[in-house]
Amino acid sequence: MRLSRYFLPTLKEAPSDAQIVSHQLMLRAGMIKQEAAGIYAWLPLGLRVLNRIEQVVREEQEKAGAVELLMPTLQLADLWRESGRYDAYGPEMLRITDRHERELLYGPTNEEMVTDIFRSFVKSYKSLPLNLFHIQWKFRDERRPRFGVMRGREFLMKDAYSFDLDEASARTAYNRMFVAYLNTFARLGLKAVPMRADTGPIGGDLSHEFIVLAETGESEVFCDRKLVEMAAPGHDFDPATVQAVFDERTALYAATEEMHDAAQFEAQTAEADRLSARGIEVGHIFYFGTKYSEPMKARVAGPDGVDTNVHMGSYGVGVSRLLGAIIEASHDEAGIIWPDSVAPFDVVVINLRVSDPAVCEACEAAVAALEAAGKTVLYDDTDERPGGKFATADLIGIPWQLTIGPKGVAEGVVELKRRATGEKSTVALDQALEAIG
Amino acid sequence: MRLSRYFLPTLKEAPSDAQIVSHQLMLRAGMIKQEAAGIYAWLPLGLRVLNRIEQVVREEQEKAGAVELLMPTLQLADLWRESGRYDAYGPEMLRITDRHERELLYGPTNEEMVTDIFRSFVKSYKSLPLNLFHIQWKFRDERRPRFGVMRGREFLMKDAYSFDLDEASARTAYNRMFVAYLNTFARLGLKAVPMRADTGPIGGDLSHEFIVLAETGESEVFCDRKLVEMAAPGHDFDPATVQAVFDERTALYAATEEMHDAAQFEAQTAEADRLSARGIEVGHIFYFGTKYSEPMKARVAGPDGVDTNVHMGSYGVGVSRLLGAIIEASHDEAGIIWPDSVAPFDVVVINLRVSDPAVCEACEAAVAALEAAGKTVLYDDTDERPGGKFATADLIGIPWQLTIGPKGVAEGVVELKRRATGEKSTVALDQALEAIG
Repeated sequence: MRLSRYFLPTLKEAPSDAQIVSHQLMLRAGMIKQEAAGIYAWLPLGLRVLNRIEQVVREEQEKAGAVELLMPTLQLADLWRESGRYDAYGPEMLRITDRHERELLYGPTNEEMVTDIFRSFVKSYKSLPLNLFHIQWKFRDERRPRFGVMRGREFLMKDAYSFDLDEASARTAYNRMFVAYLNTFARLGLKAVPMRADTGPIGGDLSHEFIVLAETGESEVFCDRKLVEMAAPGHDFDPATVQAVFDERTALYAATEEMHDAAQFEAQTAEADRLSARGIEVGHIFYFGTKYSEPMKARVAGPDGVDTNVHMGSYGVGVSRLLGAIIEASHDEAGIIWPDSVAPFDVVVINLRVSDPAVCEACEAAVAALEAAGKTVLYDDTDERPGGKFATADLIGIPWQLTIGPKGVAEGVVELKRRATGEKSTVALDQALEAIG
Repeated sequence: MRLSRYFLPTLKEAPSDAQIVSHQLMLRAGMIKQEAAGIYAWLPLGLRVLNRIEQVVREEQEKAGAVELLMPTLQLADLWRESGRYDAYGPEMLRITDRHERELLYGPTNEEMVTDIFRSFVKSYKSLPLNLFHIQWKFRDERRPRFGVMRGREFLMKDAYSFDLDEASARTAYNRMFVAYLNTFARLGLKAVPMRADTGPIGGDLSHEFIVLAETGESEVFCDRKLVEMAAPGHDFDPATVQAVFDERTALYAATEEMHDAAQFEAQTAEADRLSARGIEVGHIFYFGTKYSEPMKARVAGPDGVDTNVHMGSYGVGVSRLLGAIIEASHDEAGIIWPDSVAPFDVVVINLRVSDPAVCEACEAAVAALEAAGKTVLYDDTDERPGGKFATADLIGIPWQLTIGPKGVAEGVVELKRRATGEKSTVALDQALEAIG
């Protein structure tokens, strides 16, 4: 992509109402524009990152056996009356009346709708286990939206719903998502710790939040330090394996503020391992048994021919919120440092003299070689001065910067910089391509 | 994807309220489920086709130089007051009030919002031409939603918006989208004819609809028969080339019912070439000059330093509606016949005896070989009887069916069927792979 034909409206200064660094950097990097309180347009650079995060989340859901569908944003109020949540949900639910005076709502979550889809089609235990997920815009009418996409009102969420014949099988489904989430966040370059959490308006008796530790986190969290550095468990979803992963992680203390028990924390954790920090919730999983299947009559015939309410869980990832969380965890004074897995482009090629045909030719050859190697490239072919180009490249956080100017062309070299470390080398193009990998 | 682990709730009979064949087939093939009048959930098979159509539309937009962003579904009413359309739009606009009594609406289109984004960031003619598009859910509160996804209320639309310094440049932008649309619909296997059309609530003085001819079309259309068989123009977006394509197509008569002039049709078209038919609108493009930029003050400094209102156009494709249009154009009595470019899977592998380990092994080897060749595969590993499997494969319209049973395994052959022609051949697996390509 040629920057001169792109739409990347970077800002010198963040607006003063942006309080946290991720919000400031997303505005400065031309990734988002606020359209109303808690409602954002995703400008081209922001959308590219959003799409990449979404794709990582999707792939890890599919590896864990979940099947993707897509439910609409608007739902019938009557569906929520069946579960009893229409009146219980409160002012965070955006209630809408259409031209025929029918009551709709903008879905804040989809337990009711997916339970209705399930009961419409699934009649036998032979179709179980089943895990359906979608990635769709949700709306929660937060009283005080803030922190940019971290606490927006219209936000993109991945939500999965598992259906099982009994509690034991449902616990395996829960463990599979527990493992899938550890894999997902690790691929996104995040150290996310699962913590015992309150179940809130979703309900049920078992729930974990996945928390990224960051100074700007909204809530205080407490955990065993060893949990932070544990590696991702990988893709063996055998019931015994996922149970072992679950047991290993939950044997160590970790709890959000609401669930924290100081005495238990001290009893269970050596003093040197006790960590209390601020955290950002990026995922939340629930097992709630028959809470929805019972009132909504989502029943299947078991092997014995007797109808039984299915056992369910739900599993959410805040896809749009993850952009903020990743930036909070990965930036410096110059700007964003994207992990390779979600970067909007793999490489930015910086042309230091667009008036020099030899430099342009060398840049275009570099872009072509990188694209032939499967890399996505932003080519800065603007007539901005070099200092401005370097500042923009640092700000928008592309993992590799490849700079070509008249001196380099004369000597047959390019300058390669790794954004994360600042490490620079002056090498032949072939060597640069090899380093980028 | 193993069918036994997938979610494909096919129906023997379509519900009686489904009036047209595409709606009936989408329900029978387990692609959609109605959630409210004109609001649908996309079940896994439907979502796969929707995603593929979306990707074709996206790629053709990008080839024409448009840049993707993503605007939110909800918009501020005040933005629409600036253009004067808030009061003018009527009951099709879904108006919403949030918890703080702010007036919002579910976007039916995005001229106002994109104009606001433009004026917030673009100040100079040097940033032009610019064409921004997004693919997002829209809502139009149709009085009588019907025909499934063909006239839904919540629907997926690609909408692009061009910004140019003057009318001549804006006409080139219009011509580029005209060409991009011809390429898009051709890739989707559709014969779409551009027709002079009314501008309706978008406004402006130049507009074309892209119409697919089908017996179930909603409106009557009139055109020169030669337009139907013209090939796609390809990807040369030079101003002179796109003007020539535009001139070539518009030299022949083609008009929707509202714009039809019988006398002109007869004067301009030889009797044998006069075609009057039913049509489905799948795209609509508009040039409306300064209709939005003037009231909303979207101005840029020209080369002479003088501020000028930008000239705009907008360009819509009904992405979700296209599923219906494609099915209307491509089906038979047994079910859907997907064009290769949008098929949910490239191949379905049908196991005729899942109790036979040798057959399962041969099927799994075929699946692995197809996937290694980059094909997407649905593997029917269910214990359904063969007749049911063949009926499902025909119904859901996968382009290639590869069937393996005990007899074939003994003889070292598979049966390959092309869905579109019904042509069958009994060949070695290698030959089948070669035929699939």
